[in-house]
Amino acid sequence: MTEQDTIVALSTPPGTGAIGLVRISGPDAVLLLRSVAAKMDRDPAPRLATLVEFRDSEGVIDEGLATVFRAPASYTGEDVVELGVHGSPYVQQRLIEALLQAGGRLALPGEFTQRAFLNRKLDLSQAEAVADLIASQSAAQHRLALQQLRGGFGRRIEALRQQLIDLCALVELELDFSEEDVEFADRGQLRTLMDEVNAVCTELIASFRFGNAVRQGIPVAIVGAPNAGKSTLLNALLQDDRALVSDIPGTTRDTVEEAITLEGVLFRFIDTAGLRETGDTVERMGIARSYRKAGEASIVVLLGDAGTLSEGGLLTEARLLTERLAKDRPEGLPAPLVVPVLNKCDIPGASQAKQVIGISARDGTGLDRLKEEFLKHVNALQSGEGGVVVTNARHVEALRRTVEALTDARAALDGGVSGELLAIDLRRAQHHLGEITGRITTDDLLGSIFSRFCIGK
Amino acid sequence: MTEQDTIVALSTPPGTGAIGLVRISGPDAVLLLRSVAAKMDRDPAPRLATLVEFRDSEGVIDEGLATVFRAPASYTGEDVVELGVHGSPYVQQRLIEALLQAGGRLALPGEFTQRAFLNRKLDLSQAEAVADLIASQSAAQHRLALQQLRGGFGRRIEALRQQLIDLCALVELELDFSEEDVEFADRGQLRTLMDEVNAVCTELIASFRFGNAVRQGIPVAIVGAPNAGKSTLLNALLQDDRALVSDIPGTTRDTVEEAITLEGVLFRFIDTAGLRETGDTVERMGIARSYRKAGEASIVVLLGDAGTLSEGGLLTEARLLTERLAKDRPEGLPAPLVVPVLNKCDIPGASQAKQVIGISARDGTGLDRLKEEFLKHVNALQSGEGGVVVTNARHVEALRRTVEALTDARAALDGGVSGELLAIDLRRAQHHLGEITGRITTDDLLGSIFSRFCIGK
Repeated sequence: MTEQDTIVALSTPPGTGAIGLVRISGPDAVLLLRSVAAKMDRDPAPRLATLVEFRDSEGVIDEGLATVFRAPASYTGEDVVELGVHGSPYVQQRLIEALLQAGGRLALPGEFTQRAFLNRKLDLSQAEAVADLIASQSAAQHRLALQQLRGGFGRRIEALRQQLIDLCALVELELDFSEEDVEFADRGQLRTLMDEVNAVCTELIASFRFGNAVRQGIPVAIVGAPNAGKSTLLNALLQDDRALVSDIPGTTRDTVEEAITLEGVLFRFIDTAGLRETGDTVERMGIARSYRKAGEASIVVLLGDAGTLSEGGLLTEARLLTERLAKDRPEGLPAPLVVPVLNKCDIPGASQAKQVIGISARDGTGLDRLKEEFLKHVNALQSGEGGVVVTNARHVEALRRTVEALTDARAALDGGVSGELLAIDLRRAQHHLGEITGRITTDDLLGSIFSRFCIGK
Repeated sequence: MTEQDTIVALSTPPGTGAIGLVRISGPDAVLLLRSVAAKMDRDPAPRLATLVEFRDSEGVIDEGLATVFRAPASYTGEDVVELGVHGSPYVQQRLIEALLQAGGRLALPGEFTQRAFLNRKLDLSQAEAVADLIASQSAAQHRLALQQLRGGFGRRIEALRQQLIDLCALVELELDFSEEDVEFADRGQLRTLMDEVNAVCTELIASFRFGNAVRQGIPVAIVGAPNAGKSTLLNALLQDDRALVSDIPGTTRDTVEEAITLEGVLFRFIDTAGLRETGDTVERMGIARSYRKAGEASIVVLLGDAGTLSEGGLLTEARLLTERLAKDRPEGLPAPLVVPVLNKCDIPGASQAKQVIGISARDGTGLDRLKEEFLKHVNALQSGEGGVVVTNARHVEALRRTVEALTDARAALDGGVSGELLAIDLRRAQHHLGEITGRITTDDLLGSIFSRFCIGK
């Protein structure tokens, strides 16, 4: 137990519904329950949903279910009580006020999960996955968040960290005997171990391209001459998806505007307003500058009108666009994939699409092939290490620093510097890996992570 | 059991939150749970929150708590299972889809409560109170809904109905012996009993004025000459209340626009746009017509400018307005209370407010007295029978028909008609009382009541 007060919050979404859940966690959780359950003559048995009349000084608030989870067998690792009441904002507010009156404190955003972390129920990467899981909108986002929540990523990082700790121990052992000038750690073996850890970290960093794309949605831009049919294509893609989204009342998805889901992966159409009306080639090339502003397209569909443009012409434009985009991309970011597409292939006398994808946005011909192309791009991004994918910018940053420290260590080793300096670099590498799972934390870090959670989680 | 299928719904408000609750009810509830809880090796013990891994054919959906409530000890009286998962619309939707796949059916609005009614867990007036409780926004609304939910009203009605059944039994007993021309039922006693029931019903009908006002909020209009300070007064009243509304994140109240709560009673300021700009007296009297359109003011604050209007002038206006409003009110509705108020009493040379309320909307002087006046009006409305207040138009309608039938019965008795005809009137009265608690129902009636519920309740 690292916190001594008892926190209270509404854990279900705000608003009117059938049921609302108020959650209490902390040493006084059961005491607080008793303060609002006047008629309850003894503590409910753990985990047993018990019918309770909730009261405050004004009278009865509601009748509902109370379930007690005794520490450490609870979400937070502390005593937790869940109160299920009618889904009335008025009832929930009065119940929460009564619990605060009895000595509870209103929970901060993410404070339940923060306590779970502090009580070692979750590592930090798992705690972050809770927020990702709640925010997930596609099967792929959900799968990655769940994988991280279930500890796969954290365990992988901890294993790497353990390797570094072992390495460091060897080097440090030498320091104790430094006057005798012995070498416990075989330099060749050290080198191999370091390179292994470095390679895994680098691969994990690379997986972020995929992880981030999945988490944020793959940004797609559709560009082309004014009459190429960009809006028709966009609508055709969107409409197709809308029909697939199942329509269960009460579970309205917070769907991203102008996005489609293909095999569980979210593709977001980014706003290329201003890029769309460029008619001639020179001007169209000017869009590259605007791309840097839009900044994030991963796939660019270059749409040509098969009625006025030949396949060869389109391919030339695609080559020019690719070059321009490659040049204008910010340092470090991969250039987007340019997909040339000939539209209006159904009209008489249209150019033949042999090397490029030919579609008719109007009647839907060829859309499936275009979608396949999108998915191929995503699969190409997938390069995660052993199926583990990094989805979190904070984790990538920590991995990058780990690699930096390992590179320094490797240079130190090659340069024959003292074990002392080598150990410093190795400890730095360990430190940064520890930041990912929360073995190493600061209050600032925890604050910035958990403040992004919703209240009641 | 009156239904054979098993229903499924999200029972917490839609949207993103910490926790979402999916509820299942019906004979296959536990079977459905097992279909999504692959690793569960036996049925969880009743009421015991059990950690479960939820899966569909695609893989793991989430880990959460499942609680089984065995019939008849559940909300609906059927087997009920509550599944608590992460508050992610995506997770909830996938879980619900998996349950539908396994043979569940998506619940209609209010269907859980409807089943509770059909399985006699609640009478119909209690079921209706569930919706009222969820929608309640003030302490008074909440108190009335809770009272009704806890069965006070239903029991009162059932007691009256029992009295009528007893009465009827006496009369019908006579019919069996009609050839012998005996009178088991003392006519004087019959008369007294009928009058008693009639009086109680009439009093209950009268309580609806208060019940309805509390349920809907008391409608208040502020009228007066253009510079009397109507907006300033409205803002002063609203602002004062805003500061009182406690500000617990996550429990945002669906506050009615332009409403205040005084001692738990909601006062709604109705839109009198178009009435506000009437300067001269003749024109101002014309507002009465508009009131009929606005239709529902229960209190009209007539605001005068103490800088330009004497108290006597204001009182004259108030009298004219009262008369006009009384004349123009629709049949049966009581005329609103007109409250003359002199504003700007703080400016030098202002008229003295002796008989009327003097205020300064600008600095808040006198607002408390005005609010007291509002509350006095509400207390005058309170006339409920034994603390039981009717809040539901359907119930009032049934009570009115009961009174009609009793009045007919009384006339029949006085006219010395046969016991047969008397019994018909008494059975009519019984029938209408039975409609309130649901002893007498039709599918149409149930459909119209429960369709107003939210999904998942």
